[in-house]
Amino acid sequence: MENKKEKLEGIEIKDDAKLIEEGYITIIAGPCAIESWEQLDAIAKVVKNLGLSFMRGGAYKPRTSPYSFQGLGEEGLKYLKEINIKYGLKTVTEVTDTENVEIIANNVDVLQIGTRNMSNFALLKKVGRVANERNKKVLLKRGWASSIKEWLLAVEYITLQGNTEVVLCERGIRTFETDTRFTLDLSAVPVIKKLSKLPIIVDPSHAVGWSDLVIPMSRAAIAVGADGLIVEAHTNPSQALSDGQQSLNAKELAELVRQVKNIADVIGKKIR
Amino acid sequence: MENKKEKLEGIEIKDDAKLIEEGYITIIAGPCAIESWEQLDAIAKVVKNLGLSFMRGGAYKPRTSPYSFQGLGEEGLKYLKEINIKYGLKTVTEVTDTENVEIIANNVDVLQIGTRNMSNFALLKKVGRVANERNKKVLLKRGWASSIKEWLLAVEYITLQGNTEVVLCERGIRTFETDTRFTLDLSAVPVIKKLSKLPIIVDPSHAVGWSDLVIPMSRAAIAVGADGLIVEAHTNPSQALSDGQQSLNAKELAELVRQVKNIADVIGKKIR
Amino acid sequence: MENKKEKLEGIEIKDDAKLIEEGYITIIAGPCAIESWEQLDAIAKVVKNLGLSFMRGGAYKPRTSPYSFQGLGEEGLKYLKEINIKYGLKTVTEVTDTENVEIIANNVDVLQIGTRNMSNFALLKKVGRVANERNKKVLLKRGWASSIKEWLLAVEYITLQGNTEVVLCERGIRTFETDTRFTLDLSAVPVIKKLSKLPIIVDPSHAVGWSDLVIPMSRAAIAVGADGLIVEAHTNPSQALSDGQQSLNAKELAELVRQVKNIADVIGKKIR
Amino acid sequence: MENKKEKLEGIEIKDDAKLIEEGYITIIAGPCAIESWEQLDAIAKVVKNLGLSFMRGGAYKPRTSPYSFQGLGEEGLKYLKEINIKYGLKTVTEVTDTENVEIIANNVDVLQIGTRNMSNFALLKKVGRVANERNKKVLLKRGWASSIKEWLLAVEYITLQGNTEVVLCERGIRTFETDTRFTLDLSAVPVIKKLSKLPIIVDPSHAVGWSDLVIPMSRAAIAVGADGLIVEAHTNPSQALSDGQQSLNAKELAELVRQVKNIADVIGKKIR
Repeated sequence: MENKKEKLEGIEIKDDAKLIEEGYITIIAGPCAIESWEQLDAIAKVVKNLGLSFMRGGAYKPRTSPYSFQGLGEEGLKYLKEINIKYGLKTVTEVTDTENVEIIANNVDVLQIGTRNMSNFALLKKVGRVANERNKKVLLKRGWASSIKEWLLAVEYITLQGNTEVVLCERGIRTFETDTRFTLDLSAVPVIKKLSKLPIIVDPSHAVGWSDLVIPMSRAAIAVGADGLIVEAHTNPSQALSDGQQSLNAKELAELVRQVKNIADVIGKKIR
Repeated sequence: MENKKEKLEGIEIKDDAKLIEEGYITIIAGPCAIESWEQLDAIAKVVKNLGLSFMRGGAYKPRTSPYSFQGLGEEGLKYLKEINIKYGLKTVTEVTDTENVEIIANNVDVLQIGTRNMSNFALLKKVGRVANERNKKVLLKRGWASSIKEWLLAVEYITLQGNTEVVLCERGIRTFETDTRFTLDLSAVPVIKKLSKLPIIVDPSHAVGWSDLVIPMSRAAIAVGADGLIVEAHTNPSQALSDGQQSLNAKELAELVRQVKNIADVIGKKIR
Repeated sequence: MENKKEKLEGIEIKDDAKLIEEGYITIIAGPCAIESWEQLDAIAKVVKNLGLSFMRGGAYKPRTSPYSFQGLGEEGLKYLKEINIKYGLKTVTEVTDTENVEIIANNVDVLQIGTRNMSNFALLKKVGRVANERNKKVLLKRGWASSIKEWLLAVEYITLQGNTEVVLCERGIRTFETDTRFTLDLSAVPVIKKLSKLPIIVDPSHAVGWSDLVIPMSRAAIAVGADGLIVEAHTNPSQALSDGQQSLNAKELAELVRQVKNIADVIGKKIR
Repeated sequence: MENKKEKLEGIEIKDDAKLIEEGYITIIAGPCAIESWEQLDAIAKVVKNLGLSFMRGGAYKPRTSPYSFQGLGEEGLKYLKEINIKYGLKTVTEVTDTENVEIIANNVDVLQIGTRNMSNFALLKKVGRVANERNKKVLLKRGWASSIKEWLLAVEYITLQGNTEVVLCERGIRTFETDTRFTLDLSAVPVIKKLSKLPIIVDPSHAVGWSDLVIPMSRAAIAVGADGLIVEAHTNPSQALSDGQQSLNAKELAELVRQVKNIADVIGKKIR
């Protein structure tokens, strides 16, 4: 384990990257589920080398089937903390229960509330309170069958607990179409901008469900005005314990960053 | 408060009514939210006098807006316990967080998991464990955008915790139609019967959202083969703090029981 | 071909059965597509022997794929006319284009507008005009993604052409659920009754897509208050050129009639 | 009427603009409904001055309500023809019935099949035959509740009639969300590119239903890889007889062209 803390040559740890900042597009990348230290470290290197500042990784996994891999739990959180120390990457992980909010806040920078819990009001309140006390950001995904109005009301469950900053995340809604896993509702981005002052990022990976659709949808998300992206990446997607078919490999992630940067240039924003 | 424990004349307390039993249709009625002892007692009398055995009432209310009435919490649970003692009615209430499962199990007979929490897997596991230890039944509502397959997998999160008996509840799915609040998917009843051995009841109140549609949809639910109903009832719907427009008053509830009984007769089942 | 006109012993031809009449449930049965005289005659005998008065059969078939069987066209219409003469059964078939409305009106009793054409306004107007001139009934299916309000406006395209009687038919709406072909929206029945004076029947076959779900959904449709049913029936469903998996065989159709009759008895209606 | 044929100074009529060409983004703009010569001419000048080559305008309008403006019919077609002669703009209009395909083909360049008629197979066949004989292009909009697979099968109804070139148009699907009129499914663009060789353009106007959302969704459509756009434009949207709230005025259309051009530059395409 010692070598975990070795610094990668030439990488400067920046502790000040903000999740949302005027003029910046934030790309959060990382695996659906943390599977092992080696897996997380491998993709973290890729993320770092691309110049990105935020990493995602699931420790507590809400899976449709109880027989699917459920995440490493606390062990996964420790790895995220190590990644933060080793690479200076800020970390994002999902809270799934009022009982794990505190321990997650102890280990990561951004508390994500997943699509299945957008209307879990007990969780929203607890996350709001803890995030306010610890000065953490909250990433609130849209419920897959929640209207924009309901989503904005869910934000208020969080913000009523104090001055918590909430970032929204559009991740696809459920429709009749089956060629994509969900239907990414990019019109939600300008609607949110019209109805509120909240920042909003987009998760193309869960929405489309297929890795080859992630890059075009990422370009579109930035073009429509999103403040960032959260994408699934894995150095070996075919071996991933969760969501492998929609994960980008290292090369594809680099290509995504390159293409998104081109769109960002046009609209006068920088990538990080 | 003394008079709470007076027995209503001529009412015999039956402690043995089962939530689901071969040959029986169970009608669970009561208010969306418990508002006061007087309100709960008034509708409990109606329910008891109709010969029903189960009563519903929300103590912890998951509301879309944080500014809506959020329920009486623990005080509401005490009232449900009193109702059980006074009238012998079995009680059903919603669990909304892993932190309130124990106290709810201390006070009511059936633990309900609401539509917003069908994929709150931490809650499913906790409810499964507690229900197994305390020999409680679990009522699992369908997520409003969950497929039947996902619903059956949610059941397994509960039952993997032990020999818990789970009863499903179809309560409407989200569609484009706006003349009803949700679209009641009655075909889910025979599909569930085909795919599993699980009992299934129907909640027409939340599905349609208007009290005048509740009775016809209840008739249909019984005709299609449901094992029971859960309906919202209030002695003064226009003053209800939650869901008044879809609540039946005392007279309408009596009419529902009468009409459902007629359908039940045809298919050789009794009402309780 | 001579024997086509032989009367079945003991069968009296009634020319006066109405599609909709106070106190009656009309069950319209028959094949999705007319495949041959023999096929149509075989199922017509079954329909007649059950005491039903209306028969359906598609001559012009709107199929998702151009490589699927497209129907017998004019030849199919001739067979429907023969069935009417031989058995006295009234006939229902689908119009699919302004160019075939007249010839269909020459041969059948009820002009059906299918779900794909509910918003084909040119067709609605033509059908309205021809139905008015020839005193034909119109059966207007709901578009699979049309709201109830849009459906009622579609009716007005027809009725503005004259005093045409329109009967609505709920046939399932498109949702995310895949265990059924569509989701049968039975709440549309009481909503239509509340918003209009129009009669409404239900097509459970296309909605659910599986023959074993047709009988329970038919019971529910009658219990909720529908004025009738239109179901797919075939003497040999496994060989059907269209929709075999959702077609009832002769025995199942008899069982449907028996069960629906039981529900109809309760609500004081007769079957025909 | 004489002055209709005056040429605008400095405008060169190009007769060779193609609807789809490698390396080009085609922006088709114009009013939802043609209301008068003056209205059409006014917006045509705007379109021409922006350097665009294609103009849309509805002569036969499929409207949900029979009491809404139904279009000028043949008179509208004449105006489109005049516009083509006067400005050299290619024209696009909707066919709504097998009976008006021929006359439309006599007057316009591109035959559009609207969302309500995607599964009107009689119309698809007729349009395919006429388009093949007259060497017209066909623009096939997606049915608002049609899957991508069904859409591709609808194409085959057209192309089986001959060597017709079909261009697809994504225009929003029906979902539960009400803050937009429909949900624009931009993921359909890369899915179509993966499953077929067909070109695909996007109609943001009908999808979102509000003019202020049209520009961001247009940027996204081009970023995701669409081959063009079709947008509603009117010199006086607040007075439009149809869809005014989603129509761009002259200034907004110019801004759309400017912004789309910026995105197109990045991906190496030109606007026309």
